[in-house]
Order: sequence, then structure tokens, then C-alpha cells
Amino acid sequence: MSKNRLESFSDGVIAVAITLLALNLPLPGDAAATPALAHYLGRHWPSFVAYVISFLTIGIVWINHHAMLRRIVAVETSVLLLNLMLLMTICALPFTTALMADYLRASHGENLAAAIWCGTFLLMTAVFLAVQAHILSKEHLLDERLTPEVRRMIMRRNSLGLAPYLLGTAVAALTPYLTLAICGAVAVFYALPGTTELGPGTDAADA
Amino acid sequence: MSKNRLESFSDGVIAVAITLLALNLPLPGDAAATPALAHYLGRHWPSFVAYVISFLTIGIVWINHHAMLRRIVAVETSVLLLNLMLLMTICALPFTTALMADYLRASHGENLAAAIWCGTFLLMTAVFLAVQAHILSKEHLLDERLTPEVRRMIMRRNSLGLAPYLLGTAVAALTPYLTLAICGAVAVFYALPGTTELGPGTDAADA
Amino acid sequence: MSKNRLESFSDGVIAVAITLLALNLPLPGDAAATPALAHYLGRHWPSFVAYVISFLTIGIVWINHHAMLRRIVAVETSVLLLNLMLLMTICALPFTTALMADYLRASHGENLAAAIWCGTFLLMTAVFLAVQAHILSKEHLLDERLTPEVRRMIMRRNSLGLAPYLLGTAVAALTPYLTLAICGAVAVFYALPGTTELGPGTDAADA
Amino acid sequence: MSKNRLESFSDGVIAVAITLLALNLPLPGDAAATPALAHYLGRHWPSFVAYVISFLTIGIVWINHHAMLRRIVAVETSVLLLNLMLLMTICALPFTTALMADYLRASHGENLAAAIWCGTFLLMTAVFLAVQAHILSKEHLLDERLTPEVRRMIMRRNSLGLAPYLLGTAVAALTPYLTLAICGAVAVFYALPGTTELGPGTDAADA
Repeated sequence: MSKNRLESFSDGVIAVAITLLALNLPLPGDAAATPALAHYLGRHWPSFVAYVISFLTIGIVWINHHAMLRRIVAVETSVLLLNLMLLMTICALPFTTALMADYLRASHGENLAAAIWCGTFLLMTAVFLAVQAHILSKEHLLDERLTPEVRRMIMRRNSLGLAPYLLGTAVAALTPYLTLAICGAVAVFYALPGTTELGPGTDAADA
Repeated sequence: MSKNRLESFSDGVIAVAITLLALNLPLPGDAAATPALAHYLGRHWPSFVAYVISFLTIGIVWINHHAMLRRIVAVETSVLLLNLMLLMTICALPFTTALMADYLRASHGENLAAAIWCGTFLLMTAVFLAVQAHILSKEHLLDERLTPEVRRMIMRRNSLGLAPYLLGTAVAALTPYLTLAICGAVAVFYALPGTTELGPGTDAADA
Repeated sequence: MSKNRLESFSDGVIAVAITLLALNLPLPGDAAATPALAHYLGRHWPSFVAYVISFLTIGIVWINHHAMLRRIVAVETSVLLLNLMLLMTICALPFTTALMADYLRASHGENLAAAIWCGTFLLMTAVFLAVQAHILSKEHLLDERLTPEVRRMIMRRNSLGLAPYLLGTAVAALTPYLTLAICGAVAVFYALPGTTELGPGTDAADA
Repeated sequence: MSKNRLESFSDGVIAVAITLLALNLPLPGDAAATPALAHYLGRHWPSFVAYVISFLTIGIVWINHHAMLRRIVAVETSVLLLNLMLLMTICALPFTTALMADYLRASHGENLAAAIWCGTFLLMTAVFLAVQAHILSKEHLLDERLTPEVRRMIMRRNSLGLAPYLLGTAVAALTPYLTLAICGAVAVFYALPGTTELGPGTDAADA
């Protein structure tokens, strides 16, 4: 089975999910009823911050997905199914991002909302790791130049991505702002030049 | 006519439909008015369950669609038109999924909503069968290695997919929970490793 | 300039537009407040009818767009710009379809809504004709086997598509139901086997 | 790294963003409550004007993006990340366009809304310029025929695109109508035959 359609479908789903994020940016329903636009937008700053963080994170996952699939020459149904689970977590992000943005400044529910948002990133990273592990275990699908050593290094690097999201989900019980800071730091870190190669799904050797 | 653009358009439509499913996940409009977020989300559990079932089902149809088109080397307008009918049923799923999720726990309309949801899966499977039968009947479009025997086996396997949805639509008259359980069981069954090859649109011979 | 990215972008836009149509299917906001679901859905039948007609029409335009681009081997900026105008009319269809569906049974505004809906189809067909004429006039972009005679025949056939929409837009002043019937008849006619080849953008000679 | 998936992902995101613009066209919620449809639509003319301007602008950016990527033969992670920033500004446009349309005729907030809308175009053009500069500086990614002179000319032309949006954002403080006129003039100018080649991201030499 060729990997072209898997790439094209994944690209499509990720492209739609990343674009739908903006649907939850805060639009005052009625201009006449919301004259103080600057104040309104300022009050909704969590929506903009969460938008940028989720956008960067999905974008980086796309880059890593790209790198992951570059290593294989063919796909099997099991890869398609695992990849589908990964896409399901990505598609949930516009929802969980909106939840986080809506509740960050609320006096109730803000811890749960932050845990759900960061927990979705955690789940996404875990499923990514599962797809990666599955692909690396299928020698007949792989590009030949991947030695066992390189594979172990890829898995080690991918696993590292779990830690901050595990932490971010845990500290949501204390304050959602810390979760926001952690997810933001992860997104900015991997968006800096030279770090994505170290992140989930990539390795310096095949950059 | 090359089949590339058919694949790319179908991938696009299915990718958008599967991603739009999440637009109907339950987002409290106003955080201040919904302080009990955990209770709110818990009360809306049908939305999450229906999301997962519909997502997996559309994903599996995509995999099978993939397998179906792999068997042909070219397309004709009649294939494009039948495929369009298939896409129309898939595009209706975000709507029927939201209907099912909204009404599952209601005291009125829940049977109709479940019948519409499962009925859309039934219709989708039936149209898939029609596209499959049409393609298998066009010898000049097919890959040569498909013997009449293989074709009959593909059609038999595809037809089996109708049964659970027929049952699920019928039992919606009794209780929507049974319909939910049947559709969920179908999705999980085909998402397990090794079963999709037996499902609609695929056959072990060309896995 | 290669035509691949034009196809891929057009496929993407058309795929999103056709899928967004379903966002306007009538979903009762609150199940408890709308217990009579069957009655509710029945009362909103124009939404379902308009959905099917617009879906088929966009799908047929996609098939014809496909056929139109098959005739060329390269594109120029002027083709991209004209194609952009075509995509703009297609993207307006989820809006005009919802307008038509919402107003069909209303006692005011129904004529205007029908005229806008059918008028968008008319505009779309006219812009399609313009892209077609432009492409056929660029000999260096064309596949060599298109004789002047074939080009004239293509333009004649494409022009025929204007007539029903011109009529449908005009009769909207009398009753929107007649407009609905005309647009529905056009969609069904071209969706029947063997007629799309006669429709806008295609010709029997290169089927 | 091949540039195919970058093109396909960018095409997907831009296609979704351009199509989502129409979701904010003014649809009366309830036909019975809005009998004067013509008056309603007339009153909402800014939504239609802003739709056309944003649609054309995104479409032209897509054409220029197309031209920009044609110059390179491979991509690096740094290109993917910068391109992601560009896509983030494009994805914000359905939101800022709706904001502009909703506030244009309001007596408060209209200057801010216009500044945000035009400011997003400005940011998009600036990020486009950054991607362009980055690509042109990576000699090993480029097509060989680009002399330093051609590169300087491309950058000069791209930079010109900043001026009108800088002006439009500044004059939003005076009146949003002037901003609307400037953004509209830019869109129409580049949509005219023969001018896009002079616009951001293209150059006559490789048209």
C-alpha cells in the first residue's frame, strides 16, 4: 500500500483542525451591545494565547508526522488505524482549546478545563509515540538505513515529549496558569530554530 | 481519466467531515453560567461517545475507500457520480451524530434520532456497496489480477457490513442505547488489528 | 507553471465548501425544548432538499472542473485568478443555500432568497464559462488534439448550462418553489448516468 | 526533505481558511423574525464587501505562495516553521474579517476593528516577506537560475506590499472606511491581469 493517500488524508485532517481553532476566537455577537471592543478583546486574552499555543503545537506535530512518515516506504492497515487514533486526538483540540480559553479566568472549572486541554496534548503525544514505535518495529516498511541504534534514539527523544505534558496536566490541579505556561513553553521551544529536530518524531540523523 | 483527483477530492471531503464532528462537542457557552464543568461534561457524555463512534466509522470507511480505489487504474464519470453520493452520506454524519448525541437521553425523539444516525451509516454502507459493485463490474477499469471469484468474495464481505446497521436502525424503535451499542461495537470491531481487512471494501487477497 | 497545485487547491476549496453545506442542516438547539423531533425535521424539509441540490450541483461542478483542467498542460496567473473567482462563487453556496432553506416557506423574503440562491448558481456557471473560454483561447496551454471545432462545441455546451439558472432566477419573482424545482431538475439531470458528459465543462469527445 | 507535503498542507490550510470566510456572512437566524430580508442584507453590506476583499487577498497570497515555493527544490525545518507562522496569520483572517464587518458601521470600536483587520494583512505580508527572505538566503534549496540580482528584485517587490497595509492600519485611527478602501484597492489591483506578477512573492522573470 502506498503512503501517499495516508499523507494526503492526514494533511487534510490536520489542516482543517488547525484552521478550525480560529472559529473559537472571541467575536462579540452584536457590535451595538459591545461598544468597548478593546476591553472585550482584552478580557478574552486567554482565547488568543490558547489559539497561538494550540496552533504552534498542532503545526509542530504536523512537522514531526511528516518526519515520521518519511522514514517508511509503505503502510499497512495497522498503521492507518493507529494514525486514525492520532488524528482523533488532534481533531479534539479545537474543542479542548476553546474549553481552556473559556474557563482559564473562571472561578470554577478552570482546573478541570486546563487538565483536559493539556491532557489532550499528553494523549496526542502518547499516541504519536505508539505510531512511531509501531512503525519502527515493522522492518519491512522502513527505509533501510535505520539501524537499531537510530531507532532507539528516536524513541528516547519521542518519549521525552511526554514529560512536560504529564507535568502540565498534573499541575492543572494547582493553577491553570502554570499549565498554560508549560504548554506555551513547549510550543515556543520546539518552534525555535534547531530544536524541532530534537523533538518528537524527528532525529538529527535524517534532518 | 486518472484517479488521482478523485482520491484527492474524496480525501478532502472525508477529512473535513471527520474534523467537523468535533464542532458539536458540548462547549458551555458561558463559563460563569456553567460553573459545574465536570457535571456539565458528564451530563453530555453521549456527545463524546457518539463523537468517537462516528470518527472511527468515518475513518474506517476512508481506509476501505482507499482499498476500493486501489483496485482500479482509471475512473469514469459514472464512478465519480456514485462516489459523490457516498460523500454526501458521509458529509451528513456530523449532523446526524449531533442529533443522536443531543437526543439520546431525551424522553422524546430519542428513537427517531438514533434511527436517523444509524440509518445514515446504513445508507453510507449501501452506497459504498453500490460503488464497489459498479467498479467491480467495469473490467476495463480494474487491475487485471481480480478473478471473478475474488470479486464475488469482495462483494460478499461488503454486504455483511449492512447487517449490523440494519439491525441497529430497527432496534432504535426499542431503545437508542441498543443502537449506540451496536454502532459502537461495529466501529471497535473494525478498528481492531486484523479485522478491517475483512470489512467493507477490503479483502485479504490484496491487503 | 504546473497545474498540480491549482488542482489541489481547487479540490480543497470545493471539498470544504461541499462539506460545510451540512453545517446548516436544522439541529434543534435543545432537545428538551423540541420534543417533537419528527415534526421539527419535517417542518425544515427545505433544508434537506436544498442541501441535496446544492451538494449535487457543487459535485457536478467539481467533475466538470476536473474535465476542464484535464485539457490543459500548464497554467498562467490569469487562469489562477479567474479560477479564484469561480471558487469565490462556490464558497458562497453554503450561505445562499441556508438563506434559501430558511426562507422558502416564509411569507416574506422568500422570492429574494430564491433569486440569490439560483443567482449564485447562475454566476458560478457564468464564471465557469469565462474560465473555460479563457483556457480554450490559450493555445499554448492546451492539449494539442483540441481542434477549433471541438472548442466551439465545448463552449456551446457550456453556454447551455446558463439557461436553466437564468430561468430559475427570473421565476423566483413568482414563486421560490419553481426555482427549487428547476435547480433540482438540473442537478438530477446532470447526476444521471451519461448526461454529465453533455454538461458544462465536458464533452463526449474526451470522456 | 521534499516540498510536496509542505505544498499540500499549505494548500489545505489556505483552502479551509478561504472557505470559512463565508461562515460569517450574515444569515438571519429566524426567517419569521426578519421578514425584510432585502433590508437586512443591505444593512449588512460590510460583511459582503469584507468577504470579497479577504477572499481575493487570501487567494492572491496563495498564488504568491505558489510562486515562492516554485523557486525551491527542497525544504528544511526552518522553512516549515516560518511557513507555519504565515499560515497562522492567514487562519486568523476569518476572525478579523468578521470583526471588521461587524464593527464597520458601529459608533464605537470601528477604528480598532479596522486596525486589527488591516493589521493582520500587514502581519501576513511581513511574515511572507520573512519566509521569502529566508528561502532566498538558502542557496542550497534554490533553483540555480536565481542570480543575486533577481533575488534582490524579488525582495524589493515583496517589500512594496507592506506599504499599503501600513497605511491602511494607520488611517484606521481616522476612519475604517478608508482602511476598507485601501485593502479593497490592493485586492483589486493584484487581481487585475498582469499585476500579480509584480506583487509579493512573484517576479516577471519566472512567470
